[in-house]
Amino acid sequence: MANMVEEGIVAPTGLIAHGRGEAFDYLLGERTTDNGRRAEMVAVATLLNGNRPVISVNGNTAALCAKDVVELAEAVKARIEVNLFHRTEERVQRVCAFIEEAGAKEALGRNADALLPGISSDRARCTKEGIYSADVVLVPLEDGDRAEALVKFGKKVIAIDLNPLSRTAKAAHITIVNEVTRSLPAMTAMVPELRRNGDKRLALINAFDNQQNLHEAMEIMRANLSSMQS
Amino acid sequence: MANMVEEGIVAPTGLIAHGRGEAFDYLLGERTTDNGRRAEMVAVATLLNGNRPVISVNGNTAALCAKDVVELAEAVKARIEVNLFHRTEERVQRVCAFIEEAGAKEALGRNADALLPGISSDRARCTKEGIYSADVVLVPLEDGDRAEALVKFGKKVIAIDLNPLSRTAKAAHITIVNEVTRSLPAMTAMVPELRRNGDKRLALINAFDNQQNLHEAMEIMRANLSSMQS
Repeated sequence: MANMVEEGIVAPTGLIAHGRGEAFDYLLGERTTDNGRRAEMVAVATLLNGNRPVISVNGNTAALCAKDVVELAEAVKARIEVNLFHRTEERVQRVCAFIEEAGAKEALGRNADALLPGISSDRARCTKEGIYSADVVLVPLEDGDRAEALVKFGKKVIAIDLNPLSRTAKAAHITIVNEVTRSLPAMTAMVPELRRNGDKRLALINAFDNQQNLHEAMEIMRANLSSMQS
Repeated sequence: MANMVEEGIVAPTGLIAHGRGEAFDYLLGERTTDNGRRAEMVAVATLLNGNRPVISVNGNTAALCAKDVVELAEAVKARIEVNLFHRTEERVQRVCAFIEEAGAKEALGRNADALLPGISSDRARCTKEGIYSADVVLVPLEDGDRAEALVKFGKKVIAIDLNPLSRTAKAAHITIVNEVTRSLPAMTAMVPELRRNGDKRLALINAFDNQQNLHEAMEIMRANLSSMQS
């Protein structure tokens, strides 16, 4: 990750955010829990049921797992859009190119021609054909302001966030409390079965309660905090 | 902190470590607990009772609170030694100069003429007049290998570490679970009273149990994880 700063993919403050994630992953036990796996299944069902699903990618996500993003996007037929917290045109170009080098036909985001209502300045910028007109948006590693703005704008929001107490985790409709490089390949592997089975998709979606989901994730961390004492 | 990378004070991976700390501080409630305050008092008593106390400073500590380090060192008459996880001579020079600009007469570390036994390569390097011959070493934000090596080499080790489960926290004799910029000024303020009162210093030291201290800090985080749910 530190090298990715020199490459211009990750912002220096992205490293601080990565460290915060590492701490929560440590509390989670650095593994995919049953809780995380269930949220991933609901997320895949929701992406497959969407008409215009989009995966929003920032610098950290690109650096950690560009290839995994590309593979999930192909599997669920989602667009990929690059959206940076610390936006510079140069870094947008770099991250788009990085995703395309990882195999994407096209990463949207270079010509941001629309604004997401409710947030300020550069973070509002998105593309008309991508996030602006999406119905389902997967946001791995998103900041709270933008996650809340997406929800208010009527998007179905799926977050991947290791902190079950974050504003992003609470704002999203579906929050996967898992580490993104474990999560995305697992989600891609779930696609074939869920694509075939519309009833199962609906059953998963209807049975899901994100508040309960976040509560469970938090309880796992609480239990781990005790058991990790020597 | 991100600017301090450009200044050559903080290593890029130092930002990741900083983010981990932020996450644990969030769980702590971003405030000094009674538990933290008690450990700080025991630490100050131990520094005052030492014959050759040294404060070991790395890039993150320098970036966050060089002035606070200088003031505590003056108050308890400790030497300051710069010791970097990712050591380059250039960065040692820079961090020493940074501490001296913050008011220290001298920051040791430039001419590392001794080796701490039990750890590899560059991280073992220290100075004879500083850490090598110290009896008490305060290590804010230390890595586990070095903290363990200092303990094995017979030093009384005081750590400041926001993760009560870390190897550093467990290895140290006294672990202050608090954020370093809150901790150091509070410790400096405790010096005058504790300097006058040798009986109180001894009573504090004798009553302290670091395992109990870490258990309490962990329980505070557990309780906060519950109460922070909306």
